[in-house]
Amino acid sequence: MPTPVYQSLASSVQNGDFKSLARCISLVENQVPGTDDFLQQLPSSDTPVIGITGPPGAGKSTLVDGLIDYWVKAGKKVGVLCVDPSSPFNLGALLGDRIRMSEWYNHPHVFIRSLATRGSLGGLHPYILEITDVMKLAGFDYILVETVGVGQSEVEIAGLADCTVVVVVPEAGDEIQTMKAGLMEIADVFVVNKADRPDADRFVHNLKQMLAPSFAHKQIPVEVVKTIAHQREGIKELSDTIDTVLQQTKTNDRQYWLLAEKAWHLIQMQRMKGVSKAMLKKEIADAVAAGELNLYSFVKRFY
Amino acid sequence: MPTPVYQSLASSVQNGDFKSLARCISLVENQVPGTDDFLQQLPSSDTPVIGITGPPGAGKSTLVDGLIDYWVKAGKKVGVLCVDPSSPFNLGALLGDRIRMSEWYNHPHVFIRSLATRGSLGGLHPYILEITDVMKLAGFDYILVETVGVGQSEVEIAGLADCTVVVVVPEAGDEIQTMKAGLMEIADVFVVNKADRPDADRFVHNLKQMLAPSFAHKQIPVEVVKTIAHQREGIKELSDTIDTVLQQTKTNDRQYWLLAEKAWHLIQMQRMKGVSKAMLKKEIADAVAAGELNLYSFVKRFY
Repeated sequence: MPTPVYQSLASSVQNGDFKSLARCISLVENQVPGTDDFLQQLPSSDTPVIGITGPPGAGKSTLVDGLIDYWVKAGKKVGVLCVDPSSPFNLGALLGDRIRMSEWYNHPHVFIRSLATRGSLGGLHPYILEITDVMKLAGFDYILVETVGVGQSEVEIAGLADCTVVVVVPEAGDEIQTMKAGLMEIADVFVVNKADRPDADRFVHNLKQMLAPSFAHKQIPVEVVKTIAHQREGIKELSDTIDTVLQQTKTNDRQYWLLAEKAWHLIQMQRMKGVSKAMLKKEIADAVAAGELNLYSFVKRFY
Repeated sequence: MPTPVYQSLASSVQNGDFKSLARCISLVENQVPGTDDFLQQLPSSDTPVIGITGPPGAGKSTLVDGLIDYWVKAGKKVGVLCVDPSSPFNLGALLGDRIRMSEWYNHPHVFIRSLATRGSLGGLHPYILEITDVMKLAGFDYILVETVGVGQSEVEIAGLADCTVVVVVPEAGDEIQTMKAGLMEIADVFVVNKADRPDADRFVHNLKQMLAPSFAHKQIPVEVVKTIAHQREGIKELSDTIDTVLQQTKTNDRQYWLLAEKAWHLIQMQRMKGVSKAMLKKEIADAVAAGELNLYSFVKRFY
């Protein structure tokens, strides 16, 4: 049984109370007693999760801003999780950005939550999966998760989102900037933002050529959408493309792949409890200092 | 106690018998009874492991060929593990490449072993760590591990190698090809191969600029070396740079980070025994078909 506090919060969340949702997320984030029971009683949900990722400076937040605007005007409810430390939706924002964003913080159909990235570069929040599932309780039409790059040690954004949007910009020198991570493999939709820059069309052409061979590994082709987010150009096209991908995901095998990825992560979190790389590093340094180290004998302590 | 077969093989391997080494690797690859005990009695070793990775077509194998040649002429013994399915050191090679490579297969100071990549794109072999450690028994001066891209689900090449060399080529459209994976974060050395191509210098310049900010996360700066591997140009510089990185790794904290990464992987392999993503996917599909699925209840079966 979930604890009474979770029980009463859950019904407020289902009635659309954002304060209760915020409180509920904090409880899950802090793994208070009763969290496991609460999660195990969550009803299944069809709320689509859209991951928005890409290198810093690509314009992810401005795109998120544009999508919120577009969806809210269409009468939709939108939840946003922000795991990108450089995003204006997060804490380290410039004043100008925060004023612009504050419009959404007070909007009755928009809920925004920033999560600290814990630990290493690129890793998502350790309870991002659970927090996303709690958000689904609130009856949003879309949940957006904004992250920077690709998670390595934690769950990958592609394993969390029903549709993964990778944002890049066409610019000189960008050939290298965009190397950052395995973005190519995870994208359902590529957004080429700042598409008014010179060479944008050449960049889009090259991108499409590169994407062609990867069709073989994907059940659905990767879409490429051009946007100029700060002028809100291409937002409707992006929203339509996201809807198409979401529709396809529902009707193919990918939903089971997604669930298996999530399950794998949850099981691993549980089974690896009590072990951290930092702790291993310290114990190994001690063992080396004390004499010879055989790693295979060393690791037997942990299973 | 290791089984008798392992015991007699181990001493032949230590005496430099490559046939015994090949047999020993096969036993480990197949996890025959006694393997754990054998691994737990391996002496510690200083043999450096150099990872060579990068996208297909970058010229990794030609570089490996050049390094073998350079080192053998300097009187060194070289072991090569090949986990790259497109490499001529591996099975799917073109005839021309294989004839060139056959020189090394018969050389008394060179041992080459190809490993199948099992499972998903980019993942290394599940026992690559163990196999590399067995190779260290044979007293090589260098062990080279050639892989394509970056492992995702298995151990990462950067967690296996004392020095990770990432090979890229400067070419039009390459801005996108090189995006392939998180190569930026793992490189100790970048090789810009085919450096006689137009725009090579501009590419190197851009690369160095991009690498500058990442110094903060690294204990040692990332080196960039230009090569023309098929003409064996730049091989000495690459070898010298590798030696410098190996020297630095020994004297800083990185060796413990590397060991912790390996330990983490070994523990995870043990603790996740009996669970595979394919199996999870099937069970989840069944559970969904049978009615509602709550993932948190589902995963409790596995811990």
